[in-house]
Amino acid sequence: MTASLAVDVMGGDLGPSATLPACRALLDGHAQCRVLLVGQPEVMQPGLDLHGLSGHPRVEIVPASEVVTMDDSVEIALRRKKDSSMRRAIELVKDGKADACVSSGNTGALMAVARYVLKTLPGIDRPAIATYLPNITGSGTLMLDLGANVDCLAEHLLQFAVMGTAFAAAGGHANPRVGLLNIGEEIIKGNEMIKQAGELLRQAHVEGRLNFLGNVEGNDIFKGTADIVVCDGFVGNVALKTSEGLAQMLSGMIRQEFTRGPLSRLMALAALPVLRRFRRRVDHRRYNGAALLGLRGLVFKSHGSADAFAFQQAMERAHEAAEGRVVQEIERILAALHTHRPRPSSQQSMAG
Amino acid sequence: MTASLAVDVMGGDLGPSATLPACRALLDGHAQCRVLLVGQPEVMQPGLDLHGLSGHPRVEIVPASEVVTMDDSVEIALRRKKDSSMRRAIELVKDGKADACVSSGNTGALMAVARYVLKTLPGIDRPAIATYLPNITGSGTLMLDLGANVDCLAEHLLQFAVMGTAFAAAGGHANPRVGLLNIGEEIIKGNEMIKQAGELLRQAHVEGRLNFLGNVEGNDIFKGTADIVVCDGFVGNVALKTSEGLAQMLSGMIRQEFTRGPLSRLMALAALPVLRRFRRRVDHRRYNGAALLGLRGLVFKSHGSADAFAFQQAMERAHEAAEGRVVQEIERILAALHTHRPRPSSQQSMAG
Repeated sequence: MTASLAVDVMGGDLGPSATLPACRALLDGHAQCRVLLVGQPEVMQPGLDLHGLSGHPRVEIVPASEVVTMDDSVEIALRRKKDSSMRRAIELVKDGKADACVSSGNTGALMAVARYVLKTLPGIDRPAIATYLPNITGSGTLMLDLGANVDCLAEHLLQFAVMGTAFAAAGGHANPRVGLLNIGEEIIKGNEMIKQAGELLRQAHVEGRLNFLGNVEGNDIFKGTADIVVCDGFVGNVALKTSEGLAQMLSGMIRQEFTRGPLSRLMALAALPVLRRFRRRVDHRRYNGAALLGLRGLVFKSHGSADAFAFQQAMERAHEAAEGRVVQEIERILAALHTHRPRPSSQQSMAG
Repeated sequence: MTASLAVDVMGGDLGPSATLPACRALLDGHAQCRVLLVGQPEVMQPGLDLHGLSGHPRVEIVPASEVVTMDDSVEIALRRKKDSSMRRAIELVKDGKADACVSSGNTGALMAVARYVLKTLPGIDRPAIATYLPNITGSGTLMLDLGANVDCLAEHLLQFAVMGTAFAAAGGHANPRVGLLNIGEEIIKGNEMIKQAGELLRQAHVEGRLNFLGNVEGNDIFKGTADIVVCDGFVGNVALKTSEGLAQMLSGMIRQEFTRGPLSRLMALAALPVLRRFRRRVDHRRYNGAALLGLRGLVFKSHGSADAFAFQQAMERAHEAAEGRVVQEIERILAALHTHRPRPSSQQSMAG
């Protein structure tokens, strides 16, 4: 398959100076891949020339006159900036001209515009945000939802497991193992919603639709106990930000200790190759690129502060998902689940 | 004030070989402190002799014939082992013979027995588990609840804030700043329960009862943005275990990198003093000792695998809380809150 990616060239703190070199690197790495560069032509031009993208046989320029800034409200992104690079990139996915799109624009705006333009898949009540986190095995743990849904029902967590399974399979995890984030391994642990979600997931496992491991705990995320960890968006967001905070504190402390006086600096110098190797291994840029799953098209969110390397990682994820036909795979698993039980929304109205 | 601590000498993986040297160190560090050593006399005797605790003027031996093991169910701890060292230690608090008790026994059993023996304070619906986590400022962030309550109402989070304020004040945080764990700083963020909790906390702040900062996010825990972070027990437990998992992964990776071949080992050797300083700073044993707050007496839970140093830290927390008269302080803040509004349980029945 020849994947086409639509790129919001203007998004993020760095704009074209990060996105364009990333596009070039992706094109060089994937001989079949095509890229649609969406943005203000006059702003993009110097970068297009610099990175040999002008006239590139697998590049198409798609003009968009506006840019959604990091501070723009959902309202502005949705109602006012109808010719934004973000929106045009998503529309290319809707129109079938691109298989996935990637933007560093602000999360709220991207989710709102993506939902409005693409709509959710039948059988999916709410889209979710999924990203890989590092684990000790090196394979990465896919976690969702990370903040799109702050009040989930059990059925939503089942849907997240379906979306995660399709996405992780595209990322090379065959028959990926799903863990339910809980506060203990035993079935009786957790609140009512979690226990219900556990039942739905076990049922899907018995039916052979999902590979459900059972409950996992917070520490399992980094152990790689499961390939996919599902949770409601409130819990997922707290876990993600807590991890970011701890990683920042620890790296800050390492830096402080290695710069405490000339002797420590000398020791740091001596240990530099090892420290560099460690830093490369935990480099958060390698995990850049969150998938907005559950929509009728693939949308990827890159961190707003992403540099070219980080943005390229998000593009790699998008490319992988496009090649793995993740949307169709989600639909396939959902259809298999639903031949055995009523539509999920009935569950919602029961609990609502 | 002369604080008396009841110690479950038998609890934890190491039993007397961890608890007794810790008791000795505490006695040496606090010239007024008294310790009541609860356990099987014949098992304790060698350690008592070894650490100079036999006949120590500030030590009392309290015999208990049974031990609650790490695997004992709540049922067994509560109904069958009525003469356990854990239970006897808690009873000493109830009878006013000790100001606080410390146990490394299993959390479920300790919470159940403590609740049964001591009961909750008037105005407190549910006890909570609180512990300090490290932060970059070095002051420690108190976090609660960490898993005692998996389905919280807004009013419970207010109660956690009250308990946390009393405990943090005893730990030297004057007028401690309370943060509400959420997924964004804005008031409109979070689920309904969290938004209601925010309103209750703001009201308590306006009335001058609590020092409420507003919402904090996961990364703020390690930044030290707030002195106290309140959350429901499900979220708190996930955040805590996620942090533990990440810290384990990172330290495992550092170890791997520094032992990858003879050259790396040499570099590790060169950097050893700095690595040791770093390790000391983030040593999780320093943060050992979780408070079970909201009961009519002080109970502290030490990690089951605690060594003597770690157990001593839990005892220091207990000592600090006893000297700070945390139970009375919780009662005082609650009384001040309740002169302005109805009993919290009315809130519960409304939402229930």
